Amino acid sequence: VAEAADTDRGTTHAKVPLGFDEATLEAIAQAFDADNADALRTLLVGHHYADIADLLESLSAARRVALVRALGDAFDPDILIELDETVRDEVLEALGPRRVAEAVAELESDDAVEVLRDLDADNQRAVLDAMPVFERTLVQQGLTYPEDSAGRLMQREAVTVPQTWTVGQTIDFLRQSADEEENLLPELFYEIYVVDPRHHPVGRIGLSRLLRTRRPVPVTDILDADMRVIDVATDQETVAFLFRQRDLVSAPVIDAGGRLVGVITIDDVVDVIDEEAEEDIMLLGGVGERDLFSAVLETTRHRAWWLAVNLMAALTSAMVISLFQSTIEQAVALAVLMPIVASMGGNAGIQTLTVAVRGLATREITPANALRVVNKEVIVGTINGVLFAIVTGTVAWLWFGQPMLGLVLGLAMVANLIVAGMAGAAIPLTLNRLGYDPALGSGVFLTTVTDVVGFFAFLGLAAWILL
Amino acid sequence: VAEAADTDRGTTHAKVPLGFDEATLEAIAQAFDADNADALRTLLVGHHYADIADLLESLSAARRVALVRALGDAFDPDILIELDETVRDEVLEALGPRRVAEAVAELESDDAVEVLRDLDADNQRAVLDAMPVFERTLVQQGLTYPEDSAGRLMQREAVTVPQTWTVGQTIDFLRQSADEEENLLPELFYEIYVVDPRHHPVGRIGLSRLLRTRRPVPVTDILDADMRVIDVATDQETVAFLFRQRDLVSAPVIDAGGRLVGVITIDDVVDVIDEEAEEDIMLLGGVGERDLFSAVLETTRHRAWWLAVNLMAALTSAMVISLFQSTIEQAVALAVLMPIVASMGGNAGIQTLTVAVRGLATREITPANALRVVNKEVIVGTINGVLFAIVTGTVAWLWFGQPMLGLVLGLAMVANLIVAGMAGAAIPLTLNRLGYDPALGSGVFLTTVTDVVGFFAFLGLAAWILL
Repeated sequence: VAEAADTDRGTTHAKVPLGFDEATLEAIAQAFDADNADALRTLLVGHHYADIADLLESLSAARRVALVRALGDAFDPDILIELDETVRDEVLEALGPRRVAEAVAELESDDAVEVLRDLDADNQRAVLDAMPVFERTLVQQGLTYPEDSAGRLMQREAVTVPQTWTVGQTIDFLRQSADEEENLLPELFYEIYVVDPRHHPVGRIGLSRLLRTRRPVPVTDILDADMRVIDVATDQETVAFLFRQRDLVSAPVIDAGGRLVGVITIDDVVDVIDEEAEEDIMLLGGVGERDLFSAVLETTRHRAWWLAVNLMAALTSAMVISLFQSTIEQAVALAVLMPIVASMGGNAGIQTLTVAVRGLATREITPANALRVVNKEVIVGTINGVLFAIVTGTVAWLWFGQPMLGLVLGLAMVANLIVAGMAGAAIPLTLNRLGYDPALGSGVFLTTVTDVVGFFAFLGLAAWILL
Repeated sequence: VAEAADTDRGTTHAKVPLGFDEATLEAIAQAFDADNADALRTLLVGHHYADIADLLESLSAARRVALVRALGDAFDPDILIELDETVRDEVLEALGPRRVAEAVAELESDDAVEVLRDLDADNQRAVLDAMPVFERTLVQQGLTYPEDSAGRLMQREAVTVPQTWTVGQTIDFLRQSADEEENLLPELFYEIYVVDPRHHPVGRIGLSRLLRTRRPVPVTDILDADMRVIDVATDQETVAFLFRQRDLVSAPVIDAGGRLVGVITIDDVVDVIDEEAEEDIMLLGGVGERDLFSAVLETTRHRAWWLAVNLMAALTSAMVISLFQSTIEQAVALAVLMPIVASMGGNAGIQTLTVAVRGLATREITPANALRVVNKEVIVGTINGVLFAIVTGTVAWLWFGQPMLGLVLGLAMVANLIVAGMAGAAIPLTLNRLGYDPALGSGVFLTTVTDVVGFFAFLGLAAWILL
């Protein structure tokens, strides 16, 4: 225990914080080089599944396969859940259908569904056929729910008790179930649900509450009826929002008939929160997919798509500039200064865009305050526009000795920063209103607007005022 | 229950998903317009504190004060915890020290510390003086831990039992404590800790395990000794990583002497995960602070700082271009095409940067695979560079009828996309190695590099090859 605590002290970003120390990592590398599967297995056995998953992710594709083979029957099924999807596909292939089936049967039903949904139809069938009947039924039901729904997220194993029971009966039931051969209770749970004869949930009881209550008390006396019940079709993003908003640790899931069909627990929701934050970051960065672990060609293809969209935007800017070729020929200083207007507009717009995308994701921007957000961003853009108009205008004046050039630059700057504030707020809000992810491609839309407006305003004003 | 479930069905981003329906929001707006505090209170009482916090955030500053006044003694202290810091400061001011003290005394110790740390020294003292002695001591101790440490995150209330006890004794202890006047057990807990006589934790027992075990079994028979113990000085980011990595729901916190001093629970960690993701998004967007709810002038100031940094970058680009003024005078097509090279480089670089920043945040990039990441990004940049060199080179050739212009554009494109891949990976890795947040300012560094290289390569090659 003291050792575990010491390892954490002073841990920084850069160090591998868990599981493997430098010496072990070195020994693992040597075992790989020597192609020594026995040594590798000895080094890995006993380590936490999450650490082995991390190790797998950090290896090259060939070594991932070698590691899976070396582990053999010591491969912990929980490793699969911790892997990035790209890496998981490789590992599943290395394991083969029979061992995947064994592994999946050992997982909780929500985790089993997550692993299976990524397999193609043939492999899915092979794995399902190799599973025990009871587990297979649970998993097959799970697969019928739409992707990213509460039904996919929940585990089917729920602890329920009838309304007529007392605290004592409940505790006795839990103790007996633990003794039985075929134990259908989940391994870990945080609350139990009281159900009526139709299996509709009527209330929840936190385990800490149950433990503090005396045996003769009826469960109906201590249940919390004011609980959040989640419909099986609810989108996982809404589920995550509910958990955060209500500080939930678990919540019952009901089907269209109101019957309790499963439980969602916080650990699944933490993964969703991570995913959603990652999606926003990736979409804003124009990556659109998680490709840290993808193969080079796959990554190149994903990126190329976004670069092609950006090329359209850049060509649009080029066409705007080409309208003013004769203007630039007469005053080449314009070519020197024009990227400044576009760059400042793009940057200011991205600032607004970031705040708006995040505000929409956390539901802090609602129809009720959307207009206020746009107004505020336009005002901020105007103030910063005037400020930077004075600074850049003065720089241009002093640099090229032409006061009118400074004036043109300043006016274009004000115009572009106002447009940036407006577009930075309006683009994600509009995408959201139309039902799209507000982060999707909004960066490219935005810089197209600020580039076109920036070049057009600067060169147009120059043609009008200077020449 | 059925009603609650219906409200969730089909909820989308755009709707206010919880708490207040359209009619109530309308009635609330009318109560504000009529300055009718009684009506307002009646409309709000009974709503969940998280919903009232959301409502507060969506209001103008004046209405926030009016709402706090209208609620009066019905103001739920938990509202404070759910508020964004900017809004919380306003609400604390509207409440005044005496009522803040009452509110803080009702909160769990970790929440109380979070509210108090934002107050200035005078207000902090006033609030602490007005608190009961026991709560004051807990909170004062909490304030001595460094910001963003496990000590700040934990609650002091922990459930501990000695090694000599049985399951039955433990349950009896919990039931007795619940009956006592001054109940020092936390309201909600998920596991209990077994401690030795020096109060060092020796193991944990999940409540579901405790409930399934028969009374005579000693606690030492069912405890999980392989638990993660967190040092009180651990950074909250590391805490969040541990929770995710080990799927923890709660974890004991120890002081330098190894004694158990508190417990961190998953709900606090979810907030940290949110915060960290938000920080990355905001820093990448050049916002650097959470300013959705800040006043206009404050927001303008934050943004101006980043825009000033960007202006330096834009002026550097302008200086590079100015080196080639005579070249541009001779071939104005260069001015038309040059933003394309810079824009594509910037975009490709941001893609790499995003993946690298996220990989570092989730600790999927480690010293062990950092070089592999850089190599991969350079290869991806090279392939996409060649691809887009062919496309844009052909466009330039056809547009201006000069094959050599197309060649120059293509060569500059390849060079800039390779540099973009290298810089996009190397900048965040270097910032991280130096101990800075890898997202901090890396976007501006990157676009400075890609702009300078883009303009220099394109115009330099043009001067050399074309003229």
